[in-house]
Amino acid sequence: MTEAFKIGIAGLGTVGAGVVRILQDHIDELALKAGRPLQITAVSANNRSKERGVSLAGYRWVDDAVSMALDDDLDMVVELIGGSDGVAKALCEKAINQHKHVVTANKALIAHHGTALAKLAETKNVSLRFEAAVAGGIPIIKALREGLSANRISRVFGILNGTCNYILTEMQESGREFSDVLKEAQDLGFAEADPAFDIDGVDTAHKLAILASMAFSAEINFGDVHSEGIRNISPVDMEFAKELGYGIKLLGVAALTDAGIEQRVHPCMVPINSPISHVNGVFNAVVCDGDFVDRTMYEGRGAGEGPTASAVVADIIDAVRGNNLPTFAVPANTLKNIPTVPMNNHVGAYYIRLHVLDEPGVFAGVAMALNNHNVSMEKVLQRGRAPGEPVAVVMTVHETKEADLLKTLDDIQKLDAVLSAPAVIRIESL
Amino acid sequence: MTEAFKIGIAGLGTVGAGVVRILQDHIDELALKAGRPLQITAVSANNRSKERGVSLAGYRWVDDAVSMALDDDLDMVVELIGGSDGVAKALCEKAINQHKHVVTANKALIAHHGTALAKLAETKNVSLRFEAAVAGGIPIIKALREGLSANRISRVFGILNGTCNYILTEMQESGREFSDVLKEAQDLGFAEADPAFDIDGVDTAHKLAILASMAFSAEINFGDVHSEGIRNISPVDMEFAKELGYGIKLLGVAALTDAGIEQRVHPCMVPINSPISHVNGVFNAVVCDGDFVDRTMYEGRGAGEGPTASAVVADIIDAVRGNNLPTFAVPANTLKNIPTVPMNNHVGAYYIRLHVLDEPGVFAGVAMALNNHNVSMEKVLQRGRAPGEPVAVVMTVHETKEADLLKTLDDIQKLDAVLSAPAVIRIESL
Repeated sequence: MTEAFKIGIAGLGTVGAGVVRILQDHIDELALKAGRPLQITAVSANNRSKERGVSLAGYRWVDDAVSMALDDDLDMVVELIGGSDGVAKALCEKAINQHKHVVTANKALIAHHGTALAKLAETKNVSLRFEAAVAGGIPIIKALREGLSANRISRVFGILNGTCNYILTEMQESGREFSDVLKEAQDLGFAEADPAFDIDGVDTAHKLAILASMAFSAEINFGDVHSEGIRNISPVDMEFAKELGYGIKLLGVAALTDAGIEQRVHPCMVPINSPISHVNGVFNAVVCDGDFVDRTMYEGRGAGEGPTASAVVADIIDAVRGNNLPTFAVPANTLKNIPTVPMNNHVGAYYIRLHVLDEPGVFAGVAMALNNHNVSMEKVLQRGRAPGEPVAVVMTVHETKEADLLKTLDDIQKLDAVLSAPAVIRIESL
Repeated sequence: MTEAFKIGIAGLGTVGAGVVRILQDHIDELALKAGRPLQITAVSANNRSKERGVSLAGYRWVDDAVSMALDDDLDMVVELIGGSDGVAKALCEKAINQHKHVVTANKALIAHHGTALAKLAETKNVSLRFEAAVAGGIPIIKALREGLSANRISRVFGILNGTCNYILTEMQESGREFSDVLKEAQDLGFAEADPAFDIDGVDTAHKLAILASMAFSAEINFGDVHSEGIRNISPVDMEFAKELGYGIKLLGVAALTDAGIEQRVHPCMVPINSPISHVNGVFNAVVCDGDFVDRTMYEGRGAGEGPTASAVVADIIDAVRGNNLPTFAVPANTLKNIPTVPMNNHVGAYYIRLHVLDEPGVFAGVAMALNNHNVSMEKVLQRGRAPGEPVAVVMTVHETKEADLLKTLDDIQKLDAVLSAPAVIRIESL
């Protein structure tokens, strides 16, 4: 067997420790798969004395992670520090410039700088790989880049954040409030102390931007991802959704249309009998529509030590084997700059919940507003009657342009009997 | 861009025509992905004059497919003839011997000769790829070989035959008889005129043997796959399954145990809330358990022109790119020869339906038989009462060794009140 392939690991948190563990536990099989022994040579982290559950004996400790880029003894740097800029970016850029392969799990870095880094890597003829950045252990980047490469992809969408899916699943099953379930998720370690990044959809948006680029051979355009989180989902919407035959999921959806790319992250009502509505708890799933393969779906754990480290190590083996497909399947300098379709132009069906006074004429006013903007009602539900009292009225409307829906909602809000802003959830046709 | 990569396609049935169509329709994107233009140079089939819906103008017609192996102008042969031996095998062997890459959709060929062909390909330093042989458009071979390569796989199982899944789904939804639904499937083109290959589990067994080899780094052992089909599934079993919280699927299951490899194809009861029980109609799905990644699942169309051709073209691009991982992830000469666990040693839960005379003492006799072989009952169901008349009694038993279950069934059959051989379906714990 040939000389060992020498790896530097920057960042020894959960994922970093997992990578070390796999490389130690499976040393013989991995050497067979990679065609060379894989050898951790150097490691770096903020805290040298922290107990990580794996032995770091025999690895050179490096205080300044960026210096690994200049280490002539390393063939590859594995960046597990995180953050879109700062040390992570400096390390990756410098490592590539020094003709080292780079594997990263850093979705923020790739969402912000993926196109530029890919161009640099292709200039320097090294691999830049980031399977772990999207949907954890699910090999969806490889599926899009290689497995489905015969296809033009028209749509890719999925459940990309396990924290949100856990919270929504719990809300659906228990009927509890968002804040209550979030608290529990934090106690169980499924949500961060500062949960904003997850529950406001930023994490999903990072991943979606990467998927969209890979699927459509387009430059990454994270800035144009429309993003809404799940803070406003209430148990009453969960209940109405069920009654209407839907579940509520936070989806990232990217679609290629004649007008450009739609990239949007928001809560969706999905038909209860669609495969993705059965993806529960912390699981992730990605669905992809290709012109020849039709629809394929991929499901698994989207986070955690084992799944994420599994993706990192698969990337390492790929790079060692010299699987030299371009980062985004086509050469980075041929990635297209495709315009974003503004959300106002999105066409879809909607769920609308109104808080109204139960009095004669309310419905006539609502119907008039819909009519004025050519929005066509599908269903309306009112639970019970309470003359003169506030009640919830729920309706679904057929496919309409979002701009028209927003005008309709404006008009509806102006009605005297409408007591607060309508709750609106998009219905996704799958 | 460099010189074109020259492809010969042997076999122009549904899949062959699909491959031609993709290579024509996506010529520019594929050249970017492959790094070279992909050029069909020669084609071969039995009937030159047949209308195939694609233009073959400009391709050299070859009458003797095997002669493509000797064609110095070709870089690759795509074998879409089918059959485990004969022309297909001769063509693949000779092409590899002539240092040509080979892509095939031929599961029978790989199930019977995959190990030998892989060894040959690695000696000659060419690619042998067969993504299309298993689960059509789902890139499951790539997932196992590359995406999940960091893991030791303990189990891989799935719905690998769309014809069977279509029939079982229809039976479940409509309550109709097997023979009736099979006839309809034939009329709709979802089942062959001679359906034995599909409905008796042979097709699933081919695919399972390939998956097992890939998952466990073992030599393919198709001869040892235990295989049962779906002819004996009856509507009454479908109904009882539902009552017990199960659906019935034809699964291929491969598991690595301390005693060796289990490879078995048979109808299974699967919990109604398991993801695989929601995979309906002609869809295929594969589930894989890895030690770090945990469970991942892959779903899509398992047959048809577009999906199968999609897999073939992905393999072509891989080979052109020089993705030179060994065929089965590890070098073929290191594949292990792992013994097969005989079905008698299989441990699992079972569903048993008895056709008995409704008379006193029957149940005591059944209970005695169970007790004599240490088989532990979980549930028993009897619908209605009809003293002195034949009734169906259904029971489920806890995990037991299959040999013990068979002895129990023998004893039960000897009881006077038991009117015919019990219907038995294995319950799969997922």
